[in-house]
Amino acid sequence: MNLLVVGSVAFDAIETPFGKTDKIIGGAGTFISLAASYAAKPQVVSVVGGDFPNEYLELLKQHNIDIEGIQIKKDEKTFFWSGKYHNDMNSRDTLVTELNCLETFVPVVPKSYQDTDFVLLGNLSPVVQRQVIEQMPKRPKLIIMDTMNFWMDIMLGELKRTISMVDVLSINDEEARQLSGEYSLVTAAKKIQKMGPKYVIIKKGEHGALLFFEDKIFFAPALPLEEVFDPTGAGDTFAGGFAGYLASKGEISFENMKNAVVFGSALASFCVEKFGTEKIQKLSEKEISIRVSKFVDLVSFNFK
Amino acid sequence: MNLLVVGSVAFDAIETPFGKTDKIIGGAGTFISLAASYAAKPQVVSVVGGDFPNEYLELLKQHNIDIEGIQIKKDEKTFFWSGKYHNDMNSRDTLVTELNCLETFVPVVPKSYQDTDFVLLGNLSPVVQRQVIEQMPKRPKLIIMDTMNFWMDIMLGELKRTISMVDVLSINDEEARQLSGEYSLVTAAKKIQKMGPKYVIIKKGEHGALLFFEDKIFFAPALPLEEVFDPTGAGDTFAGGFAGYLASKGEISFENMKNAVVFGSALASFCVEKFGTEKIQKLSEKEISIRVSKFVDLVSFNFK
Repeated sequence: MNLLVVGSVAFDAIETPFGKTDKIIGGAGTFISLAASYAAKPQVVSVVGGDFPNEYLELLKQHNIDIEGIQIKKDEKTFFWSGKYHNDMNSRDTLVTELNCLETFVPVVPKSYQDTDFVLLGNLSPVVQRQVIEQMPKRPKLIIMDTMNFWMDIMLGELKRTISMVDVLSINDEEARQLSGEYSLVTAAKKIQKMGPKYVIIKKGEHGALLFFEDKIFFAPALPLEEVFDPTGAGDTFAGGFAGYLASKGEISFENMKNAVVFGSALASFCVEKFGTEKIQKLSEKEISIRVSKFVDLVSFNFK
Repeated sequence: MNLLVVGSVAFDAIETPFGKTDKIIGGAGTFISLAASYAAKPQVVSVVGGDFPNEYLELLKQHNIDIEGIQIKKDEKTFFWSGKYHNDMNSRDTLVTELNCLETFVPVVPKSYQDTDFVLLGNLSPVVQRQVIEQMPKRPKLIIMDTMNFWMDIMLGELKRTISMVDVLSINDEEARQLSGEYSLVTAAKKIQKMGPKYVIIKKGEHGALLFFEDKIFFAPALPLEEVFDPTGAGDTFAGGFAGYLASKGEISFENMKNAVVFGSALASFCVEKFGTEKIQKLSEKEISIRVSKFVDLVSFNFK
């Protein structure tokens, strides 16, 4: 099943206590579509500059990712982000943000994507996210939106307008608190549900993720890891795995949503094991299924 | 089944954003034995001063708690702690710590407790904890130990000696990191297992608890709550519920340990709903069983 993804396809340069990279392939759209490709066929809406290597586009194609919707601006440069993680790996400094071709990005949804039922709006300006929704002639079955505090700081009105149009909102705990003005995540999720999304996912990083639907709550832990090598893209990988799983099932239910959260968490647990997209570029079905069983084991008990 | 508990029986005065209390009944031994009383028969080893009201001792007795091991020092005062929580309820300032009769406390295990199979060493000086173990003529089936960073700071050698004698160590995430010198909780637990305890429980407060045994990991979430009224005693309540459950089953297995973590988490989720011991003083079996089902629901999924 197809999954329409909008998100940045970009260059990242990452420094962690374990080492550093040159400019490598990055961007929310990249992590999302690679992760989703293990369950569904992603169709990417994005933009890159003339400096973006053809081999990176080939890499996406090899994962059965449709790149027709990636605009190539020959005379411009690709979005570039560089960051350095602190020793605890839970915080980072942004060293460089060059928006480049992303600054004037107007998404164009190709004709062949326009009847796709599942849409994932990766973290981008809420205006760009909305432009994607508005190009769909028929309302998709499910619209999932990822965002971050940056948009709350600079365009809260636009953000809320886009949030009101989606079915699932995925944000982290601090962002949920900022958006709702509530400290309790339960109360925060309730307030966000009133803004539009029927489903709210609150990501707590190494502490797992909460899924809220009506008055139900599901909790998926993160896999306790001996070593986190590079957290870059873990949230996007989670969202990609989550949306890819749902697109592959085609049916929307709380039970499927729960499994989708587990599938996304499993993929995110791979992502942090190597730099950038390295690990999620080559996963086998068997590896993924073993990892999912680890999540099953982690929380399984039989109370008597 | 009996559960021998050593821990402070004391006065607390608590201030939270929701209000403040006068001197009320508190102390690790109190929270532990009240919580454990819902599954087992606690036998308390502790000390109070002549100022400790008889009605508080009666309260313990009404919960079928054996108080023969509580020494009453008529001419001394009871241990008193006072603290004030910050707005996020995750941090607090200690306003007063008066050790009083606890300062010279030498535990005495009554004859009638000496063949008890399950022992919980509540957070106290590791020397006092060890004195309890040494008074047991036969090695108990299971010794559970709770501790805190304070003892790591001032008597690490004594602490490690006591840790080497127990089966289960229960500490929080920051303490596990301090004790092991490892940031990753998985690596930290492995190092602590090498210090003696076969089972290590790492409490993460609102983020749940991890149980480590051999190379297995079990994760129990905390119940997402709309409101935390007063976190005082939640860790002790967890430990009491955990140990009480195990004592009630009599059999030590990883499966029982997992259920014990869930039972402890359920009781801790009640504890924070009111000031001090107020909520865990009067729980019905039905309330507890409904709360446990909430934990079951929270993490149940059926991956396909």
